Amino acid sequence: MSRRLIVQKYGGTSVGTIERIRKVAERIARTKREGVDVMVVVSAMAGETDKLLNMARQISESPNRREIDLLLSSGERISSALVTIALNAIGCPAVSLTGRQMGLLTDNTHTRARIKQIDGARARKFLQENHVVVVAGFQGINERGDVTTLGRGGSDTSAVALAVALNADSCEIYTDVDGVYTSDPNVVPDARKLDVVSYEEMMEMASLGAKVLQIRSVEFAKNFNMPLVVRSSYNDEPGTLICKEDSKMEQPVVSGVMYDKKQTKITVSGVPDQPGVAARIFGALAAAELSVDMIIQNVSAENHTDISFTLAAADAGEAAEIMRKVAPDLRATGVSCNSEIAKISIVGAGMRSHSGVAARMFNGLSRENINIMMISTSEIRISCVIEKKYAELATRVLHEEFGLSREAVRSDAKSRPVKSKPQPRRKAAGS
Amino acid sequence: MSRRLIVQKYGGTSVGTIERIRKVAERIARTKREGVDVMVVVSAMAGETDKLLNMARQISESPNRREIDLLLSSGERISSALVTIALNAIGCPAVSLTGRQMGLLTDNTHTRARIKQIDGARARKFLQENHVVVVAGFQGINERGDVTTLGRGGSDTSAVALAVALNADSCEIYTDVDGVYTSDPNVVPDARKLDVVSYEEMMEMASLGAKVLQIRSVEFAKNFNMPLVVRSSYNDEPGTLICKEDSKMEQPVVSGVMYDKKQTKITVSGVPDQPGVAARIFGALAAAELSVDMIIQNVSAENHTDISFTLAAADAGEAAEIMRKVAPDLRATGVSCNSEIAKISIVGAGMRSHSGVAARMFNGLSRENINIMMISTSEIRISCVIEKKYAELATRVLHEEFGLSREAVRSDAKSRPVKSKPQPRRKAAGS
Repeated sequence: MSRRLIVQKYGGTSVGTIERIRKVAERIARTKREGVDVMVVVSAMAGETDKLLNMARQISESPNRREIDLLLSSGERISSALVTIALNAIGCPAVSLTGRQMGLLTDNTHTRARIKQIDGARARKFLQENHVVVVAGFQGINERGDVTTLGRGGSDTSAVALAVALNADSCEIYTDVDGVYTSDPNVVPDARKLDVVSYEEMMEMASLGAKVLQIRSVEFAKNFNMPLVVRSSYNDEPGTLICKEDSKMEQPVVSGVMYDKKQTKITVSGVPDQPGVAARIFGALAAAELSVDMIIQNVSAENHTDISFTLAAADAGEAAEIMRKVAPDLRATGVSCNSEIAKISIVGAGMRSHSGVAARMFNGLSRENINIMMISTSEIRISCVIEKKYAELATRVLHEEFGLSREAVRSDAKSRPVKSKPQPRRKAAGS
Repeated sequence: MSRRLIVQKYGGTSVGTIERIRKVAERIARTKREGVDVMVVVSAMAGETDKLLNMARQISESPNRREIDLLLSSGERISSALVTIALNAIGCPAVSLTGRQMGLLTDNTHTRARIKQIDGARARKFLQENHVVVVAGFQGINERGDVTTLGRGGSDTSAVALAVALNADSCEIYTDVDGVYTSDPNVVPDARKLDVVSYEEMMEMASLGAKVLQIRSVEFAKNFNMPLVVRSSYNDEPGTLICKEDSKMEQPVVSGVMYDKKQTKITVSGVPDQPGVAARIFGALAAAELSVDMIIQNVSAENHTDISFTLAAADAGEAAEIMRKVAPDLRATGVSCNSEIAKISIVGAGMRSHSGVAARMFNGLSRENINIMMISTSEIRISCVIEKKYAELATRVLHEEFGLSREAVRSDAKSRPVKSKPQPRRKAAGS
């Protein structure tokens, strides 16, 4: 009978210093002593990838992507060698494998390659020989034998993919936080660590900026039903389990409240309300590879309308420039930017089976006189654009409203009645 | 008809900063523009290898050699990617190849592997497509597909081996000095750069501590008759050509004067003059992997003798310890160490055809009242052990004696008469 196999992935801060590498080795050895096979995936030491990238950018504004992949892949190779040395030093037999030695084959898209196939034969052999296998994350090779990388945070994806390929029992992601929280503890002091989150919720949270896990790795885990655990490498707390939604399990209505203050709203005013206008606007943005988040089109007045959209603040300058170029063609009366906005979102698988969630959200914001400029929803998420200055307040209000705090969770928060009628969807405020 | 192919190897200081990498790229591009195919071999950026090794040693006193190879090989991968990016940035099409991609197959001796075979097919293809090929030096893979390294300074060996495998016209070694000098310019202000040195002379010089080239790479070049050029990456001086001895070329009697102050002499006194004593002494040192340089045995007196030997000062403590352990068995009367010594050597292929060279050397030292403790010779080298305090003086005296200075070379230095009779070989002075 084969033993249990656990994949443990350690992020950049977890292997950021020699001292941290020693601690990580001790943790791995402890797991191994429990009679479990352990495969480890490591990121580059914290700061290393940025250092390498910065050198390349000093040399060239557009460094060749194939060379960037060779350059960046060194970071994970270094940390995998050091963790392996640390394990052997404490008497835990270990061996490193690079992406190539792991048999991780990708497509040819340098700097953001997609995994095509994992061989894993060599890893299996080493595991059978009772070795801990330490894999350099983030990297693979393409069919030409060139090094490829999986994009930022790609080590999470490596870890999940290897766990799937080797039929592991679970994949543990070690990081510098205790798990997934109901909200940002810096803003909501009584934010609570979640014990369980569904893949879908985690994907929404990741897309809303929760940096604890790469969205792609969660998607991968979901597709293959691989249980993920997010844990701290600094303590022994159990962390957060990310798994398939259990229909028998009572779902909380809302699992988390997230905010994003790094967005800008751009409004193109007074465009004719006729077919093709939106296509022109968003076609021009897509051509520049700018990623738009929320879109709202006002109710038409006198055959003219305003179109507003949000996108990452970093991209706003370029987007506004493009809009000013297309504005004359569209016979728009103006282009304006508003960076004093924030996006507040609630995420929860329970929304599927509970009605009135949006109403409770709008009501909560209304009680604090927070105006809603834009609204967007998915099956398990509702996002509102509000004034930036209210971001923290709104987060706390909604965290309280949905009973997510440490104390509240003891009572039956879910049974709280909706306190008022749903607010009507508002037009985007002028900006 | 195929174009000329030049292999250029750049050492750690030559690629030590972003600015230096840019300069190196410009030089490579300039060579390429002359219509020559160029293959580049790079070392790790100065300090990088030591930094990586230091991290490993902080973690473990005896880090696994396989992991050390993975760790250290990253340094050359990083510099090869950066040099390639720099070349592409100035419009010179370039592509990097790792040791594996180069097809550099080695044996399994991690951290000091020997090259078994070089495939080079991919490099040839890129060269035909008019690319500069930038190879990560110092590394290869073994038959298992594990990364191996060629030992310190192994990038020189990589460069020569690749030049041989690809049938290059010459191999240029770029470093931070202008070439091979007749002596250390810090000690001999009028030391002169040599235009041509034979492989044999260079090997003797390298074994005497000339750091400009790895002895192994010179041996490799000699075996395949690959012309080597040592040049500075900081200027356009022609450097020193290292090639086969040309019988038609007039050889200078002496090409260089070297000194080494990091030696210690150990004397085992009063041992019985009988078979097996020397074997016991040097067998014990060999068992501890200590490398002995010079050996001298005094003329026997009353069936007893003294045996002296020199070795690197860093190994002297351990060697003395071993000698003190074997001394009772050998019925030796004492073991003494003298670290106040230096080795002075003259090297020259012309010694083969010129007599009286040793006499001139001893005479020169005698004129300054410098006593000779030990003598050792090869076909093209004579070394003397003297008191350490005379090392610099002796170097200057011999440099002058053999007419190596900038001015002297204009006159016919070689025709100088030997000024006195050869000194008799002396006994080692007591120590």
